[in-house]
Amino acid sequence: MNKTMLGLWLEDGQVRLRDDLPIPEPGPGEALLRVRLAGVCATDLEMIRGYYPFTGIMGHEFVGEVVRAPDAPEWEGRRVVGEINISCGTCRYCRRGLHKHCENRTVLGIWKRNGVFAEYVTLPIANLHAVPESVPDEAAVFTEPLAAAMEYLERVHIRPSDRVLVVGAGRLGQLVAWVLSFTGADLQAVARHPRQRELLAAYHIPTLSEDEVEPGAYDVVVEATGNPSGLALARRAVRPQGTIVLKSTYAGEVTFNFSPVVVDEITLVGSRCGPFPAALRHLEAARIQPQRLIDARYPLRAGLDALRHAAQPGVFKVLIDPTA
Amino acid sequence: MNKTMLGLWLEDGQVRLRDDLPIPEPGPGEALLRVRLAGVCATDLEMIRGYYPFTGIMGHEFVGEVVRAPDAPEWEGRRVVGEINISCGTCRYCRRGLHKHCENRTVLGIWKRNGVFAEYVTLPIANLHAVPESVPDEAAVFTEPLAAAMEYLERVHIRPSDRVLVVGAGRLGQLVAWVLSFTGADLQAVARHPRQRELLAAYHIPTLSEDEVEPGAYDVVVEATGNPSGLALARRAVRPQGTIVLKSTYAGEVTFNFSPVVVDEITLVGSRCGPFPAALRHLEAARIQPQRLIDARYPLRAGLDALRHAAQPGVFKVLIDPTA
Repeated sequence: MNKTMLGLWLEDGQVRLRDDLPIPEPGPGEALLRVRLAGVCATDLEMIRGYYPFTGIMGHEFVGEVVRAPDAPEWEGRRVVGEINISCGTCRYCRRGLHKHCENRTVLGIWKRNGVFAEYVTLPIANLHAVPESVPDEAAVFTEPLAAAMEYLERVHIRPSDRVLVVGAGRLGQLVAWVLSFTGADLQAVARHPRQRELLAAYHIPTLSEDEVEPGAYDVVVEATGNPSGLALARRAVRPQGTIVLKSTYAGEVTFNFSPVVVDEITLVGSRCGPFPAALRHLEAARIQPQRLIDARYPLRAGLDALRHAAQPGVFKVLIDPTA
Repeated sequence: MNKTMLGLWLEDGQVRLRDDLPIPEPGPGEALLRVRLAGVCATDLEMIRGYYPFTGIMGHEFVGEVVRAPDAPEWEGRRVVGEINISCGTCRYCRRGLHKHCENRTVLGIWKRNGVFAEYVTLPIANLHAVPESVPDEAAVFTEPLAAAMEYLERVHIRPSDRVLVVGAGRLGQLVAWVLSFTGADLQAVARHPRQRELLAAYHIPTLSEDEVEPGAYDVVVEATGNPSGLALARRAVRPQGTIVLKSTYAGEVTFNFSPVVVDEITLVGSRCGPFPAALRHLEAARIQPQRLIDARYPLRAGLDALRHAAQPGVFKVLIDPTA
């Protein structure tokens, strides 16, 4: 094995392809993983725009294989996906089970921890989930965003008789809408582009334009655009005492009128990282087929092209393959 | 009975004491009430500042007596309080039980409906609740704000083991904190003034200053200041996956950063009008003794003085007595 590896290094808002990155050593409780396939996420693109101050190897969506796990050798050789928040286990949030909100957390490829746009990466064994054999890499690589598209279901009760709207039909909005279709609720999605509508149609999800959204009519609205105008549309669409789920972060501050939220007794729920086991169950059953979202696949050595491609409008998912 | 009555009339941001107001006639399903005692609320003061476009008799907190109820004579002579949203019963929200969010609603003394700073007022029988005999007028007049201080309990589950913070210890914050003390939760309230702290101490509620609030430590934070700085403090105080209840409206728009809400998976719950029967149970049991909040009581003919008094900083509750 070489001592160095290839990877996409972000520093001062500049991404470089480097071949001099040291292959990491697994620490106590950690595993060394070979990255089999990685996915480019909107967060990666925002990091390049300077939204997060990060220096290191980018990337957090991946499927890999355990090369070495000194403290848990039974994991060696297994194909895995990994949760992206690495927690301390001892802070006030970890002690009450809020590990993904750990005060001392590092986040894979996002915060103080090298990511997966590289040949190798380390993660704690505690973060790993074995991928069922029937799930191809091209589906498994979506485990992290699919889990994120399911988190609010842990906290918001969607009823089969509810009327539900998804605002935004891009990378994330598609996964959100597909999962929501399983609730049996009366679901619609706001979609702008023909390909967005085609992808939703495969899950029998009716689409509509912004102008066609009935004001004050939806029990639950999931905002997945990443754009403040999506929040404004969600606000118009939700009924009194309804719920808006915020699935996307906005760069910077938003001017917002909270009074209607109080008067109409709206609930706003922020949501980020979700349950990997549930996402893997959907993938194993092929109830969710995220491969449909793949636009392109680049070898890691063409990783800069992959990032450029992913940043183009209307693109869903670009994959990076460190094994090619 | 005279054909005209005394009342506080708001028009173009100017309040006038008028003695030429017609005594209203109860419509179908309505009762004519004699107002026994009314309370000045922050909303009344905001209306004078032009926050709501309203022309008519002000006031919505009251206890009264049914003078005439042609369609339900059994109510005549009863002492009552009244819910302030008058609903159509047929719109899409009324049909699903969201009467207080009725699309065609009028609101007592706030929106298209004359209020209670007058000798007489009409309300639908459906809005009335009989006041238990043991509850004095000086407590019953607080039924509406007390119910409002309980609404979010219909939708947010406060656990006995939760750590809960009330931001704001004025009129509304006091009622909110008193009610929350009954949950058994580890409750604290941010209070600035000695009298605020004294009132909270009577309910054994520990107080602290803004600087003493532990960041990211509270499961539930109730914002009851009516000031955007209260929202900012609530945001700092709440833990990941915690809940912020917005009890107060803010005039105009607020600049707010939603990204931490998504990253920390916070829930924001807007809350307005609450359950009168539950509030009356607290008052009947004297578990809540809102009389402690009374600063002054004015006859209706000195109503303009009452409004001026209520607008002074540090004042809790000013009452208006149309019978004096």
